[in-house]
Amino acid sequence: MDHKEALVELEQRFAEIKDLQAGISILGWDQEVMMPPGGADARANTMATLTTVVHERTTARPLARLVERLHDEREALKPRQRRTVELARRMVKKATAIPSSLAAEIARTESRGLEAWKAARATSDFARFAPLLEHMVDLKREVAKLNHKKRKGSVYDALLDDYEPGATVESIDPVLAELSEMTTALVKHIASSTVVVDTTPLTGDYHAQGQREFAKDVVLAMGVDLARGRLDLSTHPFCGGVGPGDVRMTGRYDPRDLRPGLFGAVHEAGHGLYEQGLDPKRARSPLGGAVSMAVHESQSRLWENQVARSRPFWQHWLPRLAEMFPHLRNVSLDAFWRAVNGMRPSLIRVEADELTYNLHIVLRYEIERDLFEGRLRVRDLPERWNAGMQAKLGIVPENDAVGVLQDIHWAMGAFGYFPTYSLGNLYAAQIMEAARVAMPELDTHIAAGNLRPLVDWLHENVHRHDQVYAAPTLLKKISGKSLSVEPFRRYITHKVEAVFGPMPS
Amino acid sequence: MDHKEALVELEQRFAEIKDLQAGISILGWDQEVMMPPGGADARANTMATLTTVVHERTTARPLARLVERLHDEREALKPRQRRTVELARRMVKKATAIPSSLAAEIARTESRGLEAWKAARATSDFARFAPLLEHMVDLKREVAKLNHKKRKGSVYDALLDDYEPGATVESIDPVLAELSEMTTALVKHIASSTVVVDTTPLTGDYHAQGQREFAKDVVLAMGVDLARGRLDLSTHPFCGGVGPGDVRMTGRYDPRDLRPGLFGAVHEAGHGLYEQGLDPKRARSPLGGAVSMAVHESQSRLWENQVARSRPFWQHWLPRLAEMFPHLRNVSLDAFWRAVNGMRPSLIRVEADELTYNLHIVLRYEIERDLFEGRLRVRDLPERWNAGMQAKLGIVPENDAVGVLQDIHWAMGAFGYFPTYSLGNLYAAQIMEAARVAMPELDTHIAAGNLRPLVDWLHENVHRHDQVYAAPTLLKKISGKSLSVEPFRRYITHKVEAVFGPMPS
Repeated sequence: MDHKEALVELEQRFAEIKDLQAGISILGWDQEVMMPPGGADARANTMATLTTVVHERTTARPLARLVERLHDEREALKPRQRRTVELARRMVKKATAIPSSLAAEIARTESRGLEAWKAARATSDFARFAPLLEHMVDLKREVAKLNHKKRKGSVYDALLDDYEPGATVESIDPVLAELSEMTTALVKHIASSTVVVDTTPLTGDYHAQGQREFAKDVVLAMGVDLARGRLDLSTHPFCGGVGPGDVRMTGRYDPRDLRPGLFGAVHEAGHGLYEQGLDPKRARSPLGGAVSMAVHESQSRLWENQVARSRPFWQHWLPRLAEMFPHLRNVSLDAFWRAVNGMRPSLIRVEADELTYNLHIVLRYEIERDLFEGRLRVRDLPERWNAGMQAKLGIVPENDAVGVLQDIHWAMGAFGYFPTYSLGNLYAAQIMEAARVAMPELDTHIAAGNLRPLVDWLHENVHRHDQVYAAPTLLKKISGKSLSVEPFRRYITHKVEAVFGPMPS
Repeated sequence: MDHKEALVELEQRFAEIKDLQAGISILGWDQEVMMPPGGADARANTMATLTTVVHERTTARPLARLVERLHDEREALKPRQRRTVELARRMVKKATAIPSSLAAEIARTESRGLEAWKAARATSDFARFAPLLEHMVDLKREVAKLNHKKRKGSVYDALLDDYEPGATVESIDPVLAELSEMTTALVKHIASSTVVVDTTPLTGDYHAQGQREFAKDVVLAMGVDLARGRLDLSTHPFCGGVGPGDVRMTGRYDPRDLRPGLFGAVHEAGHGLYEQGLDPKRARSPLGGAVSMAVHESQSRLWENQVARSRPFWQHWLPRLAEMFPHLRNVSLDAFWRAVNGMRPSLIRVEADELTYNLHIVLRYEIERDLFEGRLRVRDLPERWNAGMQAKLGIVPENDAVGVLQDIHWAMGAFGYFPTYSLGNLYAAQIMEAARVAMPELDTHIAAGNLRPLVDWLHENVHRHDQVYAAPTLLKKISGKSLSVEPFRRYITHKVEAVFGPMPS
């Protein structure tokens, strides 16, 4: 078997693995959006068995041998072939590192953990959740150690790498520290500003059906293709399905508040555009799919914040929204734009504004890092949480339900995920600066309701590349620079000063 | 490993196979009901790969050895254990008999066949479909021969057995001949009757939303549990999903005709009640699931025809239907009941009444039998079809689109399926007679809108047994007798005479 044949076999084996993962993805969407409650048991079994089959196929000896052989001979490969082998090897190694008994125990702990978390949150009783969380942390620490073998740096790196390939504590620490410091200064400025943002235009009587129709118009204007996707309702909005041909976006509409539904829909559509923009020819290849969670999140946040919280965007859309909700006819563009840019420290991450949001992430990142590096015990989490909220946001949750128990991630064992949200904000700002350089008239287009130039630019520069380039390489190709806090600093400082007045120089 | 351990391993292996089949089932439902068109390619790959995995697992050597060992030692097993082994062995043998290359070629021919059939039907051009159909018949003949090895009787038996375990040409021939003869006599009687059934109350302005709401009320009254199922819309109504916890029924509503939507919904709900009535404890066992297609079809047809085309049923439901569609207030119960029991020869099977329907089936059965026994060539199908329609129904299709090309089954390679529809009618009548013996007040309940006694009786006597008893055994347990045409003869003769006047004695 020569290289070419070996690569063909590698692609064939991964094609089948990806077919099964696509099935898991659609079944996961169905579970959230369509499945009647009575289907839960059968679905749990189906998901567990399918996951086992994927694990078996990813860890199959012939595949491992194939990958290692191609890796040994990588100098003879073309760059894209080498990248294919690199991505395949990464998946095989991650799957092989974890014994199936450990994977099964994690799956069991996860489903028990979700139940325990729901119960604990409902009664705001952290102690009830702590034993399971402790067990989960132990299991994930074992996973991290197994994946971390022979590497330098923090054991937490192995978990970060699951969501953001190549990310390490060493690389993230200074970035998040800088983001934190900058944010704190801006939050102080807002607190001392005499400007008060009136957010009342966003609350009141907003019937869900009308919101849904308006959101659909916006999403279609963004270029979401409903011949290759769906918009549905679900308790927790998400973007799932199988890119690029079958992308499932969901939303939820609060009839008393415009924000969660509208900005949620734009957010998920940003994810959806990325998925729909992937190259169909690579869908079954190791090269196919989103390159990292931070890049994925950059696409959702770019649309949610940089576009849908901008003045040019509402110049076009406010009159249309006012057709659906006539009481908005009395609200000026300036007042509306200010309202969607209200910023103030709050307790709940998912309801936070685009500035203070990052402080919620930094808190979670520091807690995770310290948990896995052994400087923090699970039992001390609530204390650490509350102290962190006080230090970073100046407010303390009155109970754990709105504090340390608010997020689902830890119950699912998803440690290492949170930082990608803030990294996504940074990527979004750096990508958007590049887009503005390439399209000086961008705001004029947006103000005219023409979102296509931005969609097309993102497709050309981000979406269509799948995993051909690693995320940092892709960012350098787009912006000419490595990841930096500066573009976000420029963007958010400008926004804060526009709303709350200039910073003291 | 003793018997007990061997059985535990058998159950475990089948549990995983059933988990995967459940995934395939939900993905199949999604494909028909939810999937955007862009998802077709990825879904075809996922379905093919999942089917391969199921085939691999069903034909795995250790499973085959386990099954054969338990089969050899079957005398030492309890009856239910023996039945488990028998069912498991049947599945393993069927999967093992067909080389995977043949299975793959059938899958390929199926998808090409569906496209060719759609195109041929659209242009009413049988010649366009014939080459693929010929290839499909060759492939299925090969399958039949492989499964038929060392057995006596017709090679077509192996195909019948795929849908109706144990069914043979020898057992079906006389039953369908008798059914055919009886039906022909009744059709002649109707033709010579002076009674004209006015079906105009069933057509006109019936907005789909109202039909859908009414059908939902009926389906809920039948005892369908929407915490363990869904009702959706699809082009071709069907009942899918995963019984008993997650049953997916679909419907289609014609705003100009009450019949297809209403009776279709009741039909699918009959299937759905069977699926929801299966024993959850057996869901992952070889014993779990519907016992045969004829028994499944008996449940849909019992509700559709024996219940929803009965006078007591409309005694309760007509006033409710008239609330939704007020022009029905002027239609008497008798006129409405006669309208839903109009009977006359027609060209299209799925639109046929409950009497002439069976002649459509007999025609297809005879054609399939002769095709596989070598007495008929594919190229002669249209001629044979038209001659059969003339002989059995006295009408000849004006083109092949409404003749030999009307059904999807052959394009999918589903030979041996059609007879189960008529067997289902016979099972339904025989089961319903037993139900009436057990519940002499049944019509009184139905006339009062109380469908629970019938649902409960069917659950107790049919649904909850899964595959514990073979279909003929189950029927004997219920009715005390083997399958016979007599109960259906009594039922349909009574119906025909009630509508069209007494037969000459």
